Amino acid sequence: PCARSGRPSRLQARTVVQQCIKAKVRIKPELDGADAQWVEIQEGMVVYVCFFHGATEDVTHEMDTGRSVSVLNLPGSVLFIPQDSLLGEPGPKRRIQYRGGCEPWWGAQLLSNLVSACRELMSASEKCSKAGVKVEQGVYGQKQDMVLNSVEPLTLLLEF
Amino acid sequence: PCARSGRPSRLQARTVVQQCIKAKVRIKPELDGADAQWVEIQEGMVVYVCFFHGATEDVTHEMDTGRSVSVLNLPGSVLFIPQDSLLGEPGPKRRIQYRGGCEPWWGAQLLSNLVSACRELMSASEKCSKAGVKVEQGVYGQKQDMVLNSVEPLTLLLEF
Repeated sequence: PCARSGRPSRLQARTVVQQCIKAKVRIKPELDGADAQWVEIQEGMVVYVCFFHGATEDVTHEMDTGRSVSVLNLPGSVLFIPQDSLLGEPGPKRRIQYRGGCEPWWGAQLLSNLVSACRELMSASEKCSKAGVKVEQGVYGQKQDMVLNSVEPLTLLLEF
Repeated sequence: PCARSGRPSRLQARTVVQQCIKAKVRIKPELDGADAQWVEIQEGMVVYVCFFHGATEDVTHEMDTGRSVSVLNLPGSVLFIPQDSLLGEPGPKRRIQYRGGCEPWWGAQLLSNLVSACRELMSASEKCSKAGVKVEQGVYGQKQDMVLNSVEPLTLLLEF
C-alpha cells in the first residue's frame, strides 16, 4: 500500500484523459536508416496513465469497467500513454519529486492488462466493432514523442 | 470556500501541465470567410487550468511564484488553456459530473491575472527575454481547438 502524504492510501492509478480527433505516439525511434514507427488513432481519447506503488491487477479492471468514462458510448478509439511524470508532486526548492510509483516491469504489465481488457470490452460491443475503433498504447519507459489534434480536449483527471 | 466531497476545502485551482515543442490553440473561429485565428508557442509548456468555487486572486500569485514548476529555468514559453472539464468527477451511472467551478466571469478574470503575472515574471528575467519566450492563452468559455507536438509531454498534475 502507498504511504505517501496527501494521497489516499488506496490510490493505485492516476489518469489524465483527453478527447482527440487524431493522436499518435512514436513506439520506435528512427534507427540505422530505418524509419520511426508510430501508432495512431482517429476520433477518440488519449489516456495518460501512471501506477502507484501497491497497484494490483484489480485496478485495471476497475479502470476499464468501473467509474471511468464509458468509451463505448462514443464510440471512439483509445490511445494509452504511459506517463510516470503523473506521480510528480511539488517538493522543496520548487523541484518536482517523482516518488511512489510501482516498479517499471509491473507498470508495463498493468498497462498491458489494461489495453487487453479494453480491447476485449470493445470487441464485445457491436457499436464499437462497426465503427472500427481501436486500442493502442505507447511504450513503457520510453520518451512519448507524440502529436495530439483536438477540437475540444475536455481534459479530465481520473484516479483509481 | 469549496465544500465538495473528496477534495480539500482549500483547493482553488487544478492544472495539468505538459511539455511541448509546439502548441497552438484557436482563439477565433473561421467566420464569414475570415480565417480562423490561432495563438502558438514553441518550446515550452501547455497549462490546462480550471478554478474552483471560492478561488481568490491570491491563488494566481501562488500558481505563479509558489510551489509550481519554475518555467524560468527552461526557459520556455507558456500556453494557458482554460479547461473547466478538469472539475469533472465520476458520478452515478458512469457519468462525469462537472460541479464546483467558480463563476465564468471570475474564472476569466483569474486566468487573465495569471497570464499577466506570468508575463511580468518572464519579462523581468534576462534569460527569458533573451530566449524570446512568450505567454499566450486560449479563450474562456470557448472550445479549445488545439494541436500539441511533444517529444516528451511529461504530464504533471498540480493543484493549488
